[in-house]
Order: sequence, then structure tokens, then C-alpha cells
Amino acid sequence: MTLDALVRQTPMWLDGSGAYADVIVSSRVRLARNLRHIPFSSQNKTADEERVVDEVLSAAQHVRDLNQSTYFDMKQLEEHDRQLLVERHLISPALALRGGNGGVMVDQDERLSVMVNEEDHLRLQALTAGFEPQAAWQMLDKVDTELCGRLDIAYDADLGYLTACPTNVGTGLRASILIHLPGLVLVQTVDQVLNGIAQVGLTVRGFYGEGTEVVGSLFQISNQITLGKSEPEILETLERVVRQIIDFEYSARQTLLRDARAQIEDKIWRSLGILANARVLSGQEFMNLASAVRLGVSTGVLKDPSLVLLNELLVRVQPSHIQRMAGSRLDSDQRDQNRAEYVRERFASASTTSRQTRG
Amino acid sequence: MTLDALVRQTPMWLDGSGAYADVIVSSRVRLARNLRHIPFSSQNKTADEERVVDEVLSAAQHVRDLNQSTYFDMKQLEEHDRQLLVERHLISPALALRGGNGGVMVDQDERLSVMVNEEDHLRLQALTAGFEPQAAWQMLDKVDTELCGRLDIAYDADLGYLTACPTNVGTGLRASILIHLPGLVLVQTVDQVLNGIAQVGLTVRGFYGEGTEVVGSLFQISNQITLGKSEPEILETLERVVRQIIDFEYSARQTLLRDARAQIEDKIWRSLGILANARVLSGQEFMNLASAVRLGVSTGVLKDPSLVLLNELLVRVQPSHIQRMAGSRLDSDQRDQNRAEYVRERFASASTTSRQTRG
Repeated sequence: MTLDALVRQTPMWLDGSGAYADVIVSSRVRLARNLRHIPFSSQNKTADEERVVDEVLSAAQHVRDLNQSTYFDMKQLEEHDRQLLVERHLISPALALRGGNGGVMVDQDERLSVMVNEEDHLRLQALTAGFEPQAAWQMLDKVDTELCGRLDIAYDADLGYLTACPTNVGTGLRASILIHLPGLVLVQTVDQVLNGIAQVGLTVRGFYGEGTEVVGSLFQISNQITLGKSEPEILETLERVVRQIIDFEYSARQTLLRDARAQIEDKIWRSLGILANARVLSGQEFMNLASAVRLGVSTGVLKDPSLVLLNELLVRVQPSHIQRMAGSRLDSDQRDQNRAEYVRERFASASTTSRQTRG
Repeated sequence: MTLDALVRQTPMWLDGSGAYADVIVSSRVRLARNLRHIPFSSQNKTADEERVVDEVLSAAQHVRDLNQSTYFDMKQLEEHDRQLLVERHLISPALALRGGNGGVMVDQDERLSVMVNEEDHLRLQALTAGFEPQAAWQMLDKVDTELCGRLDIAYDADLGYLTACPTNVGTGLRASILIHLPGLVLVQTVDQVLNGIAQVGLTVRGFYGEGTEVVGSLFQISNQITLGKSEPEILETLERVVRQIIDFEYSARQTLLRDARAQIEDKIWRSLGILANARVLSGQEFMNLASAVRLGVSTGVLKDPSLVLLNELLVRVQPSHIQRMAGSRLDSDQRDQNRAEYVRERFASASTTSRQTRG
């Protein structure tokens, strides 16, 4: 698969399906693994890195879910294209930034990816639409068994999987849920609700990952603890807490539509009106307007656009995607104009389709 | 004509025709006249007021342009309905507020009106679309000749027409132009341009008249001096200065579209998007959004809506119109919702019509 083909397709994890799709965009699990006989990445050299790539790619040939995948070699990608893979949640910002011999295997529909020579030798990831961490886990567990069964993985009987950073030792598992909480943001209880979850070993970040501001009322909730609990236990805790947050969110949405229906509908419709008409649109403004539109679709205030279109745009309006679609170098002003044009076209064709469907 | 019929029709002066319709909404002239044998309104009594009404209405029977007109008696109108006539520019706020025996004659298409027992016994007014003060003057001069020819009008060979307030003595003529200056507002030279005009005996007010804030970049420019100049001289000065302001405005629009096209188009399209989608809309916000849309239509950035729709809405989204169309008492929140709904419906049917026309 080429990068151009990748840009044009909609990742399966953004198809708007899965449980609680009106609140949960996607579920992700990842595993950190390292090869026992090669120094962990903090100390390793070029030759070590090359060995990791060779061993992992060779082993992957024999794994059914990976042998059709594409390997993107960081060395051969421009900065913008590495960034594009970050925007698609296929690699971490760390892998995009670090030099050396790293890369990522990506399967056809972007559900599975394996980063090579990031912080750990291997970072295996599975992404699914909606609130489906168990499904993602089963998919990933299978790949882990098949791939790592062919590799000599650093594992300690007491500690579990060994990793470059001690925070990942144990299961090496991080599960995270991308959740949309406009109701809690609007009733201003989101901080209160989310502050509590650190106590049960979970952590919250913004859409763009660690250390980024929250935009568009999108949050990533993930486990902090990887040690001393089994994989099912980690997932079970995450699921239980996220279910509570979903309930809080539903309740906030009900309150808003009961007590301030006109104002909420106004916010939703104006946001749609601006997205469908703007000629200049920053990424951050897009996120905030799209959040209101998503709330509208989720609560039935709006019939169009579909969740899948909103999900797709989440990824496609980011700078490197805009850049890649233009096929030429753009400054920030020009990107804001291209972004506005792209969003407008997608909204226009979505509403045409829906009109035709209804007619 | 009933008030309900009045509310439903579009006044002829808002039909978007006339010279420089892309800058000038309408031209208005009015004449102040008083009956010689009846004390001027500042001192008069109920009996005097009744005599004025009787004499004026009797005389109007014999004036071709007025004998089909409707007389609205202030005593018989609710406050909201008096306000509605103010919103249509048919009476002054002063007439709506003062008690006593006043009223207004209004012809079928709202081009001519005659206030009775406002500050002066008679205030004759003619309104036309676009930059047509001469056309308005000719229409009014004819009515003045016919109507006042049948009345004993207070006139002094030296001073001219005598009026309740000395500022109107002389011709009793006030001509005013409703002008849209979004270009000058955006390039921030509007104060500079308008400050100069007091020196040539003109004055500037906002859309809602004396002492009101400027909203929607709409200004009313009128003569201050009524004495020592003939009617044609007064009109000529006003026309000359307004023509210069029109040139400044065209030039500002060109500059904006040359130097900041994307930002201006963005502002225009967003405004359209919000007007077509909002669920809550204050009068002031409407004025500002509609101003951007009007700029869009005037500069060819937008094909829809028509100027006549924008003009109509200027009048119809005002509180007493919203109230009257609802047929029941509304609080301010409910009015903002009704206003949004009305604007949305009008924009939707306008764009449907235009699609059909194009298809």
C-alpha cells in the first residue's frame, strides 16, 4: 500500500460502528515487546536496530494478519509523511521524531500496526471503532502470540515483559478509549468526573496525546498501570470506569437538552452552518465546531452528517493530510483555506447524498 | 389596509431597486408643516389636536396620492403596534410614545405617509428604494402642493415654513439616505469619512435613528440645515456628499477583496451559514450578520439571497414585527427563537427558489 492509497482510504477504526458509537470514537490496545538478545533502544546502535527490523519483518512474513501489511521505513519518509502516520494514529510522535532505523508495519485496513524501534523494539497496536477494547485485545493477543512466538522476547517470570521504560514493564499493555464528552464539558463537570479516575490507575489525555490541550471535547482515557494485574483485569477496570463516564455523559446530554434545548440546538446548528460555509478554518476551530456537530448527530438533533464522516475528518483535516492532498508545500494560511474547502466539499456531498437517499 | 396586511407586504422602498442599490438601501424626504390658525403642538390641547386631524383627513380626501391611504389612529393601537409602524419607518418614535390624538396616513405601498400631530401638525414623508432623493422629493412636493394647497399653512415670507422646533424652520425639509458602509467599517476609515460631513451641514445617525448605536454598518445621512437654502440646493449638497461616500465605499471594498479576499469571503460565508442555521438570534446579531451577507451580495461573492430579501428582513425581524407575526405575547428569549426561525425559513425558501431557477 502506498502513502497516497493510505491517505485516500478511511481507516476501519473510524467507521462509526461498535458499541456506544455516540460517545466512543474508538478503542485501542498496544503491547510493548523487546528482543532479549538485543540491547533495548535507549542504548542500541545502528547495527542493533537493523537486526531488530530484520528479525521482526522476517517473523511477520509467517503471521497471517501481518503478511499482507506494508512496512513504512521512517528513513525513507519526509517529515510531513511521518507526521501523516502520526495523524492516523499509526505511529507515535516519538517514532516520527527520532532518527535511526525505525518503521511501522500497517495492515490493509489500519486495524493493526507494529512499530519497530520506537522506545521498545516492538509496539504492537490494534484499533477498533466504538467501545470495543475486548475485540481489540483479542485481535492483538492473537498477533502477539503468533509474532512473538517466533521471536526471542525479553520476559521475566516475576516481572513479566521487560520494557525500555519501567512504566511499561509487566503486561506491556496500554488500552485507551477515545471518548467524546461535550455534555460534561458544557455542564462543566468534566474536570470533576475525570479527576477521580487517576485513583483507579487510569489517566486522561487530549486527542493529540500526552501533554496536548483538550480540543473538541475529545479525551483519551487509558490505564497507567501495566504491572501486577493481568491483561483481562486491566481491561475490565478500564471498561468499568469508562461505562460510568458514558452514563455521566448521557445524563449531562439529557440535562442540557431538557434545560437549554434552544441554546444547545443553536450551538449545534451554527457549528454546522459555519463548517459548511467557512472559507478559512484552523485545525482547532474545526475540532470545536465538529464537536458540536457530533453532539448534534449523537443526540438526534441532526440527521446529517454521518458519524463516519465526522470521524474521517478528524484525521483528514490535520496539517500533514491537508499538505499531502494538496500535493505541494502549503503555509499555514493556505492550509486553513484548503481545510475549509475540503470540509465544505465533504459536507456538501454528504448532504446531497442524504437528500437523494431521502427523496 | 389592516395592520396584518401591512405586516405581510414588502414596502416598495425595500424592493432593492434604484441607483446604487449595492450601497444605498433607500432615500427619504420629509416636510414639516403646521396649520396657521391652530397652536403648534407644544402648547395645544385635545380640541386643537382633533381639529388638526379633521382638517388634514378632509383635505387628503381630495389628494389623488392620499385618498386611498389608510389612517392609523395612535389612540386605537397597542404599544406594540405603534412600535411596528416605527419599525416600518412610517412614524417616528416620538409619535409612538406621545399620548393624545395623533396618527398617520399611509398609502398602499408605503411610499407616502403623513404623520398628524407629531411635533408638527403635519410631517409628510416619501420613501424610495436606492439613491433616489430627487424622485422622492418630486413625489413629496406634489403631495405637499396638493394637500397643503387645501390647508392654511403657517408660512412666513422671510423665514419660510414655520415649525414647532426652530431647527426645522425654512423649507421644513429633511432628506436622508440609508447607506450601507461595511467596507469603510472594515478598513476602519468610516469615522474619518463621516466626521467630515458635519462641516457641510449634514449629520449621521444609526439605522434606528437619533441617539442609537450603529449596527450592521448601516448609517442614515441627512441634512441638518433647513433654512437659507432652497429645497433643490439642500438635495444637491446631500447628493454630492453621498456620491463621494459611495466612491470611498467602493474603493474600500476593492481594497478588501484584493488584499484579504479569503478573510472577507470567510466572514461573508460564515455569516450566511449562521443566519441559515441559527436557532437563537438577537436583533443586533442579525443586523451584523446580514451586513456581511449584504456585502457578499453587493460584491458578487454571493449569488443568494437577493437584496430585496435582506431589505425585507431588516424590517421584519424587529421585535414588534416578530411579536405581531407570532400573534401572541413573547418574551425576549422566545423572540430570539422566532427571529431565528423566520430568517431560516426565508433563507431556505430563497435558496430553493434560486436552485430551481438555475436548474
